[in-house]
Amino acid sequence: MNYPSRLIEDAVNEIAKLPGIGKKTALRLALHLLKREEQQTRSLSDALVAMRTLSRFCIRCHTISDDEFCTICKSPKRDSNLLCVVVDTKDVLAIENTSQYTGVYHVLGGIISPLEGIGPSDLTIDSLVGRIELESIQEVILALSPTMEGDTTAFYLQKKLRPTGVKISSIARGIPVGGDLEYADEVTLGRSIVSRVAYD
Amino acid sequence: MNYPSRLIEDAVNEIAKLPGIGKKTALRLALHLLKREEQQTRSLSDALVAMRTLSRFCIRCHTISDDEFCTICKSPKRDSNLLCVVVDTKDVLAIENTSQYTGVYHVLGGIISPLEGIGPSDLTIDSLVGRIELESIQEVILALSPTMEGDTTAFYLQKKLRPTGVKISSIARGIPVGGDLEYADEVTLGRSIVSRVAYD
Repeated sequence: MNYPSRLIEDAVNEIAKLPGIGKKTALRLALHLLKREEQQTRSLSDALVAMRTLSRFCIRCHTISDDEFCTICKSPKRDSNLLCVVVDTKDVLAIENTSQYTGVYHVLGGIISPLEGIGPSDLTIDSLVGRIELESIQEVILALSPTMEGDTTAFYLQKKLRPTGVKISSIARGIPVGGDLEYADEVTLGRSIVSRVAYD
Repeated sequence: MNYPSRLIEDAVNEIAKLPGIGKKTALRLALHLLKREEQQTRSLSDALVAMRTLSRFCIRCHTISDDEFCTICKSPKRDSNLLCVVVDTKDVLAIENTSQYTGVYHVLGGIISPLEGIGPSDLTIDSLVGRIELESIQEVILALSPTMEGDTTAFYLQKKLRPTGVKISSIARGIPVGGDLEYADEVTLGRSIVSRVAYD
């Protein structure tokens, strides 16, 4: 494309490096910023740089954090007997968004995937075992995706955590709320029958 | 949502102010930047601020520009006898992208819309009339959207430009290339019959 301004061209090229954003969307966003107050562009730019340069990982649960310990680990309201193991910070946010969980987290930082060359030593598994030995954790919930990598990682973690005697559980697999039986895949439907829940 | 980090929360909120980007997409973009080199975030941030603070409008055609005159007005390769009138810089880019146009542009900066309180005096129409009087322009192509506002603006411009004696044309309306007659709306199909093109 033939841009009348190099400044716009540079901005569009930088925006289009983001995942899922093509040149057309990038141009729309750039022109939007041009129409708004200069302050909006500065706030956006400052927030991005601050996030990228100042954020770090919580030294306890490895979630992205502003300080040494994240707000969840620091909160006295959280139940530190209950630990939820997730792949990354996105999962922490997804679970927080449900408002159903009051325990703490442990972020693995990835998932075991021999194809991508990610083994157990690349994840924060040693740190997880250390936490279970030192902290008063009573139950570990594995909240991993029901994919081959997720199941492999869950299997590895179970083997690794079994000797500590901690109770291990997995998030429930089944038909999504609002989902239609007719359109559920057979594996999910099969699992939902095997792990049926009794009416109390 | 309960963010473990204020820095991420701020970044997500700022990104989500952009049009068409919700909180979920904003979070995905923020986490993407966190995974990449710090330099990528800095380049993005710098490009946005540079674009917003340094770009200006070409004093001749009112396109967004780096300097007093935009690259199109400055180019000796462009045919300055042919002038294309568009609503904003986005339209300039769309037409440039076709590689079919070698003339120069005039950006109105908006469209006549009584509902939104935009009248002819809010647009660069006086500047357009001035250019036609001073420059060697032989034909003005009105490239406006075929909406009520676009047609109103085109009508107003024709009345205003008629006394200068310049040739005035409009971009062709008709069935889009690759479009199916069956699915064309009746107005477009009707117009495409009225303005049929003879085989030479």
